[in-house]
Formats: sequence, C-alpha cells, structure tokens
Amino acid sequence: MMTRDDCLARDKADKLSSLRDQFDLPDGVIYLDGNSLGARPKAALSRVQQVVNDEWGKDLIRSWNKAGWFDLPSRLGDKLATLIGANPNEVVVTDSTSVNLFKALAAALHKQSREGRSQRHVIVTERANFPTDVYIAQGLASWLDRGYEIRMIDSPEQLNTAIDEETAVVMLTHVNYRAGHMHDMREVSTLAHARGALMLWDLAHSAGAVPVNLNADGADYAVGCTYKYLNGGPGSPAFIWVAAQHQEDFRQPLSGWWSHASPFAMQPQFEATGGIRRALCGTQPIASLAMVECGLDIFAQTSMAALREKSLALTDLFIDLVESRCSVHPLKLVTPREHAHRGSQVSFAHPHGYPVMQALIARGVIGDYREPHIMRFGFTPLYTRFIDVWDAVDVLVDILDNKRYDPAALRDAVT
Amino acid sequence: MMTRDDCLARDKADKLSSLRDQFDLPDGVIYLDGNSLGARPKAALSRVQQVVNDEWGKDLIRSWNKAGWFDLPSRLGDKLATLIGANPNEVVVTDSTSVNLFKALAAALHKQSREGRSQRHVIVTERANFPTDVYIAQGLASWLDRGYEIRMIDSPEQLNTAIDEETAVVMLTHVNYRAGHMHDMREVSTLAHARGALMLWDLAHSAGAVPVNLNADGADYAVGCTYKYLNGGPGSPAFIWVAAQHQEDFRQPLSGWWSHASPFAMQPQFEATGGIRRALCGTQPIASLAMVECGLDIFAQTSMAALREKSLALTDLFIDLVESRCSVHPLKLVTPREHAHRGSQVSFAHPHGYPVMQALIARGVIGDYREPHIMRFGFTPLYTRFIDVWDAVDVLVDILDNKRYDPAALRDAVT
Repeated sequence: MMTRDDCLARDKADKLSSLRDQFDLPDGVIYLDGNSLGARPKAALSRVQQVVNDEWGKDLIRSWNKAGWFDLPSRLGDKLATLIGANPNEVVVTDSTSVNLFKALAAALHKQSREGRSQRHVIVTERANFPTDVYIAQGLASWLDRGYEIRMIDSPEQLNTAIDEETAVVMLTHVNYRAGHMHDMREVSTLAHARGALMLWDLAHSAGAVPVNLNADGADYAVGCTYKYLNGGPGSPAFIWVAAQHQEDFRQPLSGWWSHASPFAMQPQFEATGGIRRALCGTQPIASLAMVECGLDIFAQTSMAALREKSLALTDLFIDLVESRCSVHPLKLVTPREHAHRGSQVSFAHPHGYPVMQALIARGVIGDYREPHIMRFGFTPLYTRFIDVWDAVDVLVDILDNKRYDPAALRDAVT
Repeated sequence: MMTRDDCLARDKADKLSSLRDQFDLPDGVIYLDGNSLGARPKAALSRVQQVVNDEWGKDLIRSWNKAGWFDLPSRLGDKLATLIGANPNEVVVTDSTSVNLFKALAAALHKQSREGRSQRHVIVTERANFPTDVYIAQGLASWLDRGYEIRMIDSPEQLNTAIDEETAVVMLTHVNYRAGHMHDMREVSTLAHARGALMLWDLAHSAGAVPVNLNADGADYAVGCTYKYLNGGPGSPAFIWVAAQHQEDFRQPLSGWWSHASPFAMQPQFEATGGIRRALCGTQPIASLAMVECGLDIFAQTSMAALREKSLALTDLFIDLVESRCSVHPLKLVTPREHAHRGSQVSFAHPHGYPVMQALIARGVIGDYREPHIMRFGFTPLYTRFIDVWDAVDVLVDILDNKRYDPAALRDAVT
C-alpha cells in the first residue's frame, strides 16, 4: 500500500521535477486543470513585459520587422512541430482552434471534391467530440451547397462501419476532452485512407500531453490548442498543421492578406503564398502569441517520451488511490484503464460530481466539471508532483467520507 | 506665416493636450504612424501584468468567471460602441478584421439569398480597398456555389452606376488606408438601400479617428480594427457590429462554441445564441484582448467631436506647411483637401517616396510607405502635438532640400 512518504520519494527520484520551478504556481493550490488552462511559465511575465513595454512601447511599428512579429506564427509553429511529429514549415500558430478547424475541414472537403470524388459527401465524427468541432462542421456544411452530411458515431468501435465510400473526411479529437479516451492515430488514419477518406485530427488535448506522430501515423490535417498542456496563456492562438503532400493544393476560404504571396504589394487579386502560411488569414494578437514561446521553451528541455512516462505514472497513481481509498463511494472511472487509450487526464463520474468538484476547488484542489456528472483531473508532468496526487486524493476522501459538499450547489455560468 | 512658436502656443491652448501624458511615447520620436499601430497607453503595461501575473498566474482557470474573461468581447464592445454611433449589445471585440469581415459578408449574402433575392449576385467594392477585404470577398465568393461576382470600382463616383438591381452587398472601407479618402457614410448607405443592397463598412481607419454614426447613417454591418487609432496593442482583436434589426437573422459560417446559446451544456447540435454574441466563434486571446480596454478608457475622457476638431487642425497644418515649405519638390497631395472627405491621415506621393520615408524614420519621424510612391502620415489627436507637425515638416524639408535620402534604398519585407 502506497503512502505519502512513497510519493515524496517518487518526487525526489523524478528527473523532471526541476521543471516545476519554471512555473508560477500559487501557494495552497493543487492545480489539476492544466487540460483546460495550463499554468503560467514564469518567463511569460517578462516576455509579455518585453512585448508591451519595449517592442510595442519603444519600437512601435518597427517591431513588425525588428522584433519578428510577422514571422511569429511560423517561428512558433516550427518549435511546436517537434512535439507533434511534424517537420518545420508544416505548422503555424494562429487564430483559434475553431477557426483553424474551419480552414482544415474546408480544405479537405475541397480536395476531395476537386479530385472528382463528389459522391463523398459525409464528414464522420463523434457525438462526444468537443462541441465546437461539431458546430464548425455543421456551420461549414450548411454553407456549402453540395449537401454535406455530418455522421456522428457513438463509440470508437463504430468507426469501422461509419467510414465508407461516401466519407470525405474523418474528423476526430485525438484525446477526448471529457472521458480522456485516446484514439490510435495510426490505426484510424490507416482505416480512413483505406476507405478513401482524408484524416483530420484535433490535438487540443494531445499536444504537449501525449506523444503525437502526425507524419509517421499518416494524418492529413491537424489543429490544436496552445493554452492547455502547452501553457501558452489564456486563449493563446491555436495551431494548424498540413501534411507536406497537401500543402501545394491547400485551399481555405479565409484568404486574408497574411496568406497572400506578397502581402505588402497590396494587389487587388488574391494569390496564395506557398507552404503552411497559406493557413494564415489576418493580423495576429502579438502579446498573446509571443507568450506561447515560453511554454514551448520548457518542452525543449525534455522529451515527450519522458513526459508520457511520468504522465502515466501520475494518472495510474491517481486511479489507484481514488479506487482504493474511495471504494465505498459511487465513483466510476470514465477514462480508459489501458495506457494505449488514455490521455493525460482522469475523469470520474459521481452523482454529485458538480458539488463535489466545487468543494474540492474551495479546498484548493482545482479540477473541473463537465456534464453529466463528470469530474475531470488533468495531470501535467511538467509541474504536477506525486505528492500533489496524494494530497488531492486526501482532500477528496475527506469531502466524500464526511459529505463536505452541498448537493444543491448551483452551476456557475462558466465552469 | 505660421512659426514654431505659433505651434507651441496652439499646444498650450489645446484642451486635449493632457491626454498625451497617458501614452508611452519614446524620446526622440515623432510618431505619425498611429494609423498603422497606435501608441501604447501607459495603463496597458500594468493591465497586461495584472492579466498574466494575477489573473492567469494566481487565479488560473477561475479567471474565466472571476476576472470576466468570457464577457470581455461584449464588455469591450459596449465601450467601443459609443465611439461609432452604436448601442450596447451591438458590438463584440473578437478575432481579426479579416475573419470578422468574412462573417459579416457571409451573413449579408445569406440574408439577401434567404429573402428570395437570389438574382443579387454582385458584391460591390473598390479596387483601392484594403487588399485583405477584397481577398476575403474573393475567398468567400469562390466557396459559395451561387456564383457571386466581385465588382470593383475605380473611384467613388462610380458607386452610383455600380450599385444596381444585381447588387447584394456594398462593401467599402469608410476611410481609405492609402489615400485617406473618407466616404459619406449616410449618402452611400442610402444609395445602397435605395437599390436594395445591404451596406457593410470596414472602419479600420475610422474607429477612433473620425466621428462615426453607424445607426444614424443607416449602416447594416461593420467591422474594424482596434490596434490603429484605438491603441489596443499589436494585432489586438478586431470588432464586428451588426445593426439591431439584422441580429435576429444574423447567420455566419464560423459557428464555434462561443456563439452557442449554451456553450457549457456541451450539446452536439449548434444552436445560436441571441444578440451580437452570434458573431463570436472560438476562445479569444485574453492578454491581447484585455489591453484594448486601456485605449478605450482614454477615449472615454473626451469626445469624438473634440478629437475630430483637433485632427482636422493637425492635418490642415501639416498640408499647409508641407505645401508651403516643400513647394519646389515633386510632392503631390493624395488625401482630399475637403474636410468632409478626409480621415485622420495625410498622404503625399513623391517619386522617391520609399527612400524619403526611410530617411524620415532614421531621423525619428515615423510615418510609413504604401505602394506606389505614397508616404503616409497619421495624426492621432490623443497624443500628436502641433509642435510635432512643425518639427516633422522641418525634418522633411531638410531631407528633400539637401537630398538626404538614398534613391536606391531597398524595401523591407514588411513596411
């Protein structure tokens, strides 16, 4: 039976433990919500001060060149590429995940249609996908006159029958935001290709959380988020990746001037630039964008393999401790037990999931809640310690054993 | 004949002069490029430190509620509304101008089509419009199967013949980015309506620069930029306005979760929220967004009427001084002389416009250059003084009289 001292010993032996010093983590808080908003790299404060005080305040307009603002989407994209099995010139950091998904999905549908596969009118996705992905697909489909259909599956097992000769694109989130289930990227991509479909992955809960090998696993397009496991800051710009073989004919509807071959020639006819900058649209929010680099620079000090090993150790420990110490309570593990299908979060359902989570937060154990009844706990090996896992479970045990929660607690507007 | 002392006296008598103290302006610089990137409000530094250090660093995920991050697009939109003749709940600050233009143009085309006016297949705009506006229209049109045509006029006088019974939308930038020409918003909107078209305005060079009365002047949709005259910071999120009478049937393709009626219910079917938040899409870059408020708070201390009066005095003075003191040089005023058609910038063409501007910048007089041959000088009455106008012209006179520029200077990648 594991003890608190065992956890302390594991932290002491942890080769990644010093990375935690590079984050600002408030006292009295065990932060298990890095899957929603990553913690702040200490360097982000000085970086944003530099952008605002010096680059904006002192150099003003000259910073577009001098401070490299115009190149930031590409420069950060190249740094991010190494975390998701991509090459330089395949990723840009820009816009929001929703906007990028719109571009990638449109490009994929266009490619199928232009290559004469207009009978492929189906977009396969999951009903349990993060809602904005489904909304974006619904929005795009309803604007295209070709009559695209969104086919929503209810479990991963249905992919095999759902993907057929009518399928244009398979659009999945690699790690599910609620359950924490992870798809086998290679297996699903291979299936999609075997049926003639293109494969679009949303890496919102994967980038920086689990090893991703977009090129090796045969993905076609991907988008993702930088403000969760990548610690880019609240609402920091998202990313979009396009496989090299699709870049030449990559075409997306948001053809703003940043994707023009000569943006400052000010020509009245759109002409797409080459490469991944085709996925850009308009001017980017530089202060928020620049801070993304601070998170990426911490990842550069370790490897996704080392992070994955610790992530699984943390989530294994959490599952073990909750199941052993809370066994009399109606908690149900929602996240897959098999490592191959687990992201870097653990979700437990409880009939009073919302008030229990509110009680945890009030005690400084910050996870979050997702309908229905699901308490989510994110584990970010860059800064989460084994002792945090122990102490979080300790608080949970006390709350459940002594009913220290209000079953009638009302939901916040935003949780 | 005006003297330098006269300019000093005008600054002394200027009731707006104290507002300059609220900006960080580097020593040795006369900044006449606020029409490209506004100067930094001093408050922006402490505001972004608060967002990054406290709201992100200390309160973490709780700041979505506690610090009001989720409401920022609406709260800032309400503040901005007063500057453009709009009401609360008509504006949100979000995404980029290009992305917002895509939404507004799509919504306008959809409205015409849904109301049975499918013969209206023309988007009227100007060849001299800011290129991204035209690119976005081209991009959107090429994705819709209805076969929309972009009709580009070459001068404002052609509007009367270009807008006809085939016109779905008239899409114009109110103040031209290059020439500084301002359309008569009421006259053009009235013409568009008389011919059955909808009127979409881009206020990138108008918001905070000239009085705008969207509702009184009969506009239907508008977008604009916060990083120019509104001083929101580099690439700060843009805005979108939808007239109250168009909000109920406002429909745009980028239907992300922030425009859902219940974003946190996580339902798999998109259902649009009411009001202007229908124009939202995904998660916003909070650090960049929050700083927009610092610029708006300075505008709240004065009025657009007072700012316009000083703006015209500054641009009149600049035109007078350049024309009287540089009369032997081949400078040609590109900006309209009539106040009714002048924004808050002055553009002069010169055969060596690019190297002359580089020489000005090297001497600390920062304007910018736009093809072909055009030197742009932006005047922002919040912080530009009459003495700045005098001193800038003094430097220009010296550069031209003594040929202190390199006619072979090469253009930067970004200017």
